Amino acid sequence: MNTVELIARKRDGGELDEAELEWLVGGYLAAVARADDRPVVSEGQMAALLMAGVLRGFTDAEARALTRVLVRSGDTLDLSVLPGPTIDKHSTGGVGDATTLLVAPLLASAGAQLVKLSGRGLGHTGGTLDKLESVPGLRTELSGEEILRIVGDVGCVVAAQSDRLVPGDRAIYALRDLTATVASAALIASSVMSKKLAGGADTIVLDVKAGDGAFMPTVEAADALARLCVSIGVDAGRRCSALVTDMDQPLGRAAGNALEIREVVEALSAPPAGRLAGLALDLAAQALALARDRDVEVVRADLHQGWTSGDALDRLRRMILAQGGDPAVCDRPADVLPSAPVVRSVEAPGDGTISVVPARAVGEIAAALGAGRQRKGDPIDPTVGVVVHVEVGDLVRAGQPIATVHARSEGDADAAAKRLAAAVQIGTEPVPPRSTVLRRVGTVRDTGASCARAEDPSAA
Amino acid sequence: MNTVELIARKRDGGELDEAELEWLVGGYLAAVARADDRPVVSEGQMAALLMAGVLRGFTDAEARALTRVLVRSGDTLDLSVLPGPTIDKHSTGGVGDATTLLVAPLLASAGAQLVKLSGRGLGHTGGTLDKLESVPGLRTELSGEEILRIVGDVGCVVAAQSDRLVPGDRAIYALRDLTATVASAALIASSVMSKKLAGGADTIVLDVKAGDGAFMPTVEAADALARLCVSIGVDAGRRCSALVTDMDQPLGRAAGNALEIREVVEALSAPPAGRLAGLALDLAAQALALARDRDVEVVRADLHQGWTSGDALDRLRRMILAQGGDPAVCDRPADVLPSAPVVRSVEAPGDGTISVVPARAVGEIAAALGAGRQRKGDPIDPTVGVVVHVEVGDLVRAGQPIATVHARSEGDADAAAKRLAAAVQIGTEPVPPRSTVLRRVGTVRDTGASCARAEDPSAA
Repeated sequence: MNTVELIARKRDGGELDEAELEWLVGGYLAAVARADDRPVVSEGQMAALLMAGVLRGFTDAEARALTRVLVRSGDTLDLSVLPGPTIDKHSTGGVGDATTLLVAPLLASAGAQLVKLSGRGLGHTGGTLDKLESVPGLRTELSGEEILRIVGDVGCVVAAQSDRLVPGDRAIYALRDLTATVASAALIASSVMSKKLAGGADTIVLDVKAGDGAFMPTVEAADALARLCVSIGVDAGRRCSALVTDMDQPLGRAAGNALEIREVVEALSAPPAGRLAGLALDLAAQALALARDRDVEVVRADLHQGWTSGDALDRLRRMILAQGGDPAVCDRPADVLPSAPVVRSVEAPGDGTISVVPARAVGEIAAALGAGRQRKGDPIDPTVGVVVHVEVGDLVRAGQPIATVHARSEGDADAAAKRLAAAVQIGTEPVPPRSTVLRRVGTVRDTGASCARAEDPSAA
Repeated sequence: MNTVELIARKRDGGELDEAELEWLVGGYLAAVARADDRPVVSEGQMAALLMAGVLRGFTDAEARALTRVLVRSGDTLDLSVLPGPTIDKHSTGGVGDATTLLVAPLLASAGAQLVKLSGRGLGHTGGTLDKLESVPGLRTELSGEEILRIVGDVGCVVAAQSDRLVPGDRAIYALRDLTATVASAALIASSVMSKKLAGGADTIVLDVKAGDGAFMPTVEAADALARLCVSIGVDAGRRCSALVTDMDQPLGRAAGNALEIREVVEALSAPPAGRLAGLALDLAAQALALARDRDVEVVRADLHQGWTSGDALDRLRRMILAQGGDPAVCDRPADVLPSAPVVRSVEAPGDGTISVVPARAVGEIAAALGAGRQRKGDPIDPTVGVVVHVEVGDLVRAGQPIATVHARSEGDADAAAKRLAAAVQIGTEPVPPRSTVLRRVGTVRDTGASCARAEDPSAA
């Protein structure tokens, strides 16, 4: 094959087949590994191909083929030793989105096994590994044997993705990030789904974010991405569904690593309430109903029972212990978690109704405080971040605290408080509350009939 | 500046200013030189930018700014010590196109100075340096001092472009070649014109090829490229014009390095005749009329006189001698030039009129024989190639020789003869002869009024 001719074909709007994509990905991986002088596919050639694909579009067939190529580029996890059902969950990334740390123990409490291989945060979005590592002692770099032992014992485990899993995706994602070629549904779908397929779970549930704080700004774009991901999963023989959810405002109240762990523990210590808890229950119920061919309402009742009985919190405690963390975080989070030296309250400047809590701005303010990283490999501070006490539609009075800033210094706190006060909008008109779930793709209906099967991947 | 943001802007159809282009080119040159781990502009980032530009388009303002940036990336040649007029000539590359080796001594014989910094052939197109180096002993790697001394003594010199001249163009061109991003008028124009501006001549004449054997397949595309190049030259304060010429069939009869030198010597040894000689006279006349503010017809008569008097051939002889080559090539080319061991004639299969002599195929056949290179740095054989004895519109009889193959082996000769016989088309209908010059951009009119000035760069 001739690399330049393949790039030229994509540049001119043509299609690449699976063998050609395998040549390109394999050649690029070899180039990354060897730093060859005349590589078969150089960094520049892969970047040109990616940009041509972003501007000319990749077909769904190319996205499916690329996913298979990426899966084959490395090891896969074999979960067949587990009794099952094995479930995986993925979010496309948002602000105040700690759902994984609720969904994992909830599914474990219902008897399923969730193995979640996760990434770190970048830019304004948080990463599950970063959040979890704010628990003193906790390790996320686990071997394959440790992962299987912990999920077998506890029912859930959240670990760092090994370098040997989908190395093709790792290499290409790093290049996309540097070359302004992230924004392609086919590239995002193949990246997400290759990781999920390599992760080995039978059932995959996706949370595709839409809005200001998401990669997909519109519901339509998020819906198209969700459909493509679900079709790739079903094509690979997995049970797969997706929710398209709102990321115009942060999902939870906290944005910051230890702050989000505290929110998770506090949520599991009380009856489910609020947007974060609601979405976690919805995602867990969809996954479980799909995995077990059961009514959503029936499994939702089981999950609710696991939550209120304290079993879900206990699963989280046992998972944290098994991963080397201090389990007392589930009882006394404020004592166990590290905290920031400066805490500053932000008050409403006047009476009114909250009209905008911009997710991206809140995420960026938290990241600027030190909770996130601008570039891969940057250090982060687990203690800092923002807690927003209000959501869109809430009535507030002048002087009422609407947010709390946790910062390393008075200067940082001042700057963050100023930015938050400017970002959160208060209007005089009433604002109807928004629903969190905007679309459902391939989900199991509440009527009891399950409908997400290979025959009908896009049933809603 | 943020490289990813600049790439994203071009991806989204925006425009880059001169400072931004300077950041990108400078950053990429530093990356090429240092092999930095975290370069400011990596190979992948430059490739993504180029592909975004090819698909979204660069504006004329970007082409002008990029040209200036490329010129500033390295040294420039100062020709102000020469009495002048100093002239440079460029062809966008074709098959059987040895015009430079006719234009250079013709202009020298008319008292002008031509300093031609040239490149090597790639793919199906030949390179002037490769042709010239088939003369035993001849050197093209000359120092700046040698170049000025030779042009001062002889009136013309053809040398390899130094690594210190437009290194930005050199680096970007190598990347474009590998990433299917050659086909952009703005990138081609800035590459061509940065080299011409750095070369230092007051007057620049361009030969923009259109057709099957050219980078620009249509007259319209070639015309647009010619206009952009001329506008860049005029913008930089140079006298500049362009001819758009036919490259559907080879220009000269020979395609192959020593074979083309022989054709040049034989052409200068007789009164001017044929398409190659006609275009060389036209290009030289345009350049000289523009440089001297003179009537085209007057300077054409001078050039014709230099040709028929033998002065032009003598200038070529002196240039070859000054560059270390054997000057006897101008008297006994067949004896001095190296020759191929196998010579094979190709005959017309039937009576008729030549309807197609496909330039690209002829160039590819010559390259396959060893006259050209597929990749930069490949070795070439000076002796091999093809001589086509007919052109479109010629009447032929069955058995009449239409081409001669010069090859290293019987097998090579067989293969080339078979391909040539299939490529040259003979029809039964008469075919009107085509003109070589298809459009004129910014040229001096034959009425005597010169019109290519900064005020009116596109006058025809």
